[in-house]
Amino acid sequence: MADLPNGSCCSLNPLELFEQVTAQGEKVRSLKAEKASKDEIDAAVKLLLSLKLSYKTATGQDYKAGSPPADFTPLSNGPGNAEEDDFVDPWTVQTSNAKGVDYDKLIVRFGSSKIDKDLINRIERVTGHKPHHFLRRGIFFSHRDMNQILDAYENKKPFYLYTGRGPSSEAMHVGHLVPFIFTKWLQEVFNVPLVIQLTDDEKYLWKDLSVEKAYQYAIENVKDIIACGFDVNKTFIFSDLHYLGTSPEFYKNIVKIQKHVTFNQVKGIFGFSDSDCIGKISFPAIQAAPSFSTSFPQIFNSKHDIQCLIPCAIDQDPYFRMTRDVAPRIGFPKPALLHSVFFPALQGAQTKMSASDPNSSIFLTDTPKQIKTKINKHAFSGGKDTIEEHRKYGGNCDVDVSYMYLTFFLEDDDKLEQIKQAYSSGALLTGELKKTLIETLQPLIAAHQQRRKQITSEEVKQFMTPRKLAFDY
Amino acid sequence: MADLPNGSCCSLNPLELFEQVTAQGEKVRSLKAEKASKDEIDAAVKLLLSLKLSYKTATGQDYKAGSPPADFTPLSNGPGNAEEDDFVDPWTVQTSNAKGVDYDKLIVRFGSSKIDKDLINRIERVTGHKPHHFLRRGIFFSHRDMNQILDAYENKKPFYLYTGRGPSSEAMHVGHLVPFIFTKWLQEVFNVPLVIQLTDDEKYLWKDLSVEKAYQYAIENVKDIIACGFDVNKTFIFSDLHYLGTSPEFYKNIVKIQKHVTFNQVKGIFGFSDSDCIGKISFPAIQAAPSFSTSFPQIFNSKHDIQCLIPCAIDQDPYFRMTRDVAPRIGFPKPALLHSVFFPALQGAQTKMSASDPNSSIFLTDTPKQIKTKINKHAFSGGKDTIEEHRKYGGNCDVDVSYMYLTFFLEDDDKLEQIKQAYSSGALLTGELKKTLIETLQPLIAAHQQRRKQITSEEVKQFMTPRKLAFDY
Repeated sequence: MADLPNGSCCSLNPLELFEQVTAQGEKVRSLKAEKASKDEIDAAVKLLLSLKLSYKTATGQDYKAGSPPADFTPLSNGPGNAEEDDFVDPWTVQTSNAKGVDYDKLIVRFGSSKIDKDLINRIERVTGHKPHHFLRRGIFFSHRDMNQILDAYENKKPFYLYTGRGPSSEAMHVGHLVPFIFTKWLQEVFNVPLVIQLTDDEKYLWKDLSVEKAYQYAIENVKDIIACGFDVNKTFIFSDLHYLGTSPEFYKNIVKIQKHVTFNQVKGIFGFSDSDCIGKISFPAIQAAPSFSTSFPQIFNSKHDIQCLIPCAIDQDPYFRMTRDVAPRIGFPKPALLHSVFFPALQGAQTKMSASDPNSSIFLTDTPKQIKTKINKHAFSGGKDTIEEHRKYGGNCDVDVSYMYLTFFLEDDDKLEQIKQAYSSGALLTGELKKTLIETLQPLIAAHQQRRKQITSEEVKQFMTPRKLAFDY
Repeated sequence: MADLPNGSCCSLNPLELFEQVTAQGEKVRSLKAEKASKDEIDAAVKLLLSLKLSYKTATGQDYKAGSPPADFTPLSNGPGNAEEDDFVDPWTVQTSNAKGVDYDKLIVRFGSSKIDKDLINRIERVTGHKPHHFLRRGIFFSHRDMNQILDAYENKKPFYLYTGRGPSSEAMHVGHLVPFIFTKWLQEVFNVPLVIQLTDDEKYLWKDLSVEKAYQYAIENVKDIIACGFDVNKTFIFSDLHYLGTSPEFYKNIVKIQKHVTFNQVKGIFGFSDSDCIGKISFPAIQAAPSFSTSFPQIFNSKHDIQCLIPCAIDQDPYFRMTRDVAPRIGFPKPALLHSVFFPALQGAQTKMSASDPNSSIFLTDTPKQIKTKINKHAFSGGKDTIEEHRKYGGNCDVDVSYMYLTFFLEDDDKLEQIKQAYSSGALLTGELKKTLIETLQPLIAAHQQRRKQITSEEVKQFMTPRKLAFDY
């Protein structure tokens, strides 16, 4: 049977199969209507049954006329048109739009809530602090149950913060600071404990890295995190590879989560396949577990009902949708979330940032000169091709990476608005816009490097030692 | 399309699919040979392709003429006739034979080696000790790489012992002592360190148990294990739920194993399905990890090349086949194994022992009276229906549970042989055989209970504290 196109038949995807079943169903109906011969009808029915079986085996669901296999794309992206829509999961962010991912659509698909003016006003009212510019400018744009956290805070019920980082390399870029800058602000205005997870085990499982290297990256990243200015009395930082082996309570929560999530579920949420290693398949439980206060008995005195608030980039949401699904079934409160947009690559919001391409972002180790050269040379510009055209038509802030970076790092709202007006009108040239960004980032990164240099291994050890924090439970 | 038998088509198993593909292939060939119409051939080819797709989706393999899907049954049982053969995996042991599982067949299927007279003689020669009656009587009947261990021992190269228990309930029965009795003998004759794993996490994942209950069962079981007489200076006993959270090195080995085993592999070896929880799917790595000396840095001074010898019941072999496959890929020596037969239920070797049925075995908590009653009332007899017939035809030791139990617990070879002769000839009646068993087990269990009673929580803690043992590395 070597003459048969064996390979081609096996590459049908569920949607193609769906269409085949539908077409064959119509054929059977029309043969019956035409009163075709029994043999002919039987052959057509046989093929139909076989196609239906293929469909069921491929999708795990019975064929249902009129319901194409929407769930075939990983659940994290929900139903949608693959041609038009962005793709977002914890390992891939893809968009064909120079403005970046369509976040309003993502909110609908993920089923989260928009951080609107009302919520921002409430945060201001409740905390008595002006909302962080990440909130004012929509950089943290989506949430789950943030009102519950504010209710609790108003009622003097405790909560805690949890964020994290996957230490895939020694070098972090400025975008990696976003969750930490915001989490630090949240910690200061709410005065609550904070736990920070370094998923070095995840990086070992996903990357071509040794366990030792992954742990070493974690420690280097911890120094950058500490350099953001966290308070050692209120913050516990941990590496999975180490903390998991020092806390039976953390492991117990992991096993509890692992008992309540099936392979089918992680397949749907994360797109895992049968040829993925069992480490990847069970890892989501390890990122989920810090959402429960009993994972840190030393901090929360083994209390199980202290709610958690997780600031993170929206691509991490699949982990916490899973966590929120499991939480009530193992007797814990669901974590609340605050989601940020993605930090764009220098080359534009639709390209991928990559730690192996030093020109794809500004790294925390860059010199002032490197910062200047990279921005001038690589930052995608929304300006026009010639000065004349630019003066006439103005630049486009929506796709200009230098402007985007300023929305993250230029704190002065008035100055940012002036720049936007001037650039859009053509009064401000690309070179001048880039100069502002360079002058914003150079001192920010120099100060970071200065703080990082002073961090001793003793200090790292202090942050990473399981201990009581400055809160009583 | 409600008139189509949707359900029935979806229940084809891989073998049926294989047969359908084969038949349809023949049909295509004969149509071509007959020079049938293009339409007819096309329709037949379409159906063939669709069937091949179904086959590939169901089995993960391309259809290959003449090679039926042998691997569809869990690999642990290998190819074989499901009608005739026994089924053995870590959770199920099934046989329809009153003599019990066919162990010679199992050796062939599992690909292990028989413990033959030569190997037993070599053990005697190398250790200078008379082989344990579990060896002499074929109770430990199969091995992997035992000659390698003996080579190492002769060359003064160190090795260590690893065995374990899944604490599914507080009560252990006499059969549960088998691996511990034998391991204790091995430890004494070879004078090597021993680690004993209590898989309380496994029991939490598989059973309807809380984490706390599983850990509590582990501690109760540890007392029974200690009561077997292990030397605290040479033995480390640990519960997964606790030790995993106190040893980063143990967790690192688990993650290393988890990176090198796919879901496809554990599906093949253990028969897991997509609806199994991710805890079960990743658990095999946790039972595998103690096979590597770096999981116990406190004992082996972080040396990575100390080989491990695992005495266990043959149903645990799938875990260690997986471990042996992974070992060289992560730089560790493959563990060697010694496999025992299963301990039969009182009701007969083909029935299941169950902790929830107190009459299915003799428990370590039974009183002398309970032992007597259970054996007299429930032990399956190979004797004849009437005394007259028994005297005339003799009893059948091969299916007599009391006799089987004596092979485990009556150390005196001569006495056992006399009993066999007398019972087979009809000189010894069932009641008399049972009396011998009762008189063997009563003092054995009473002594066990006596030793167990004296075990303090301090002693349990000592055995379970990660520490250096009385060996230098």
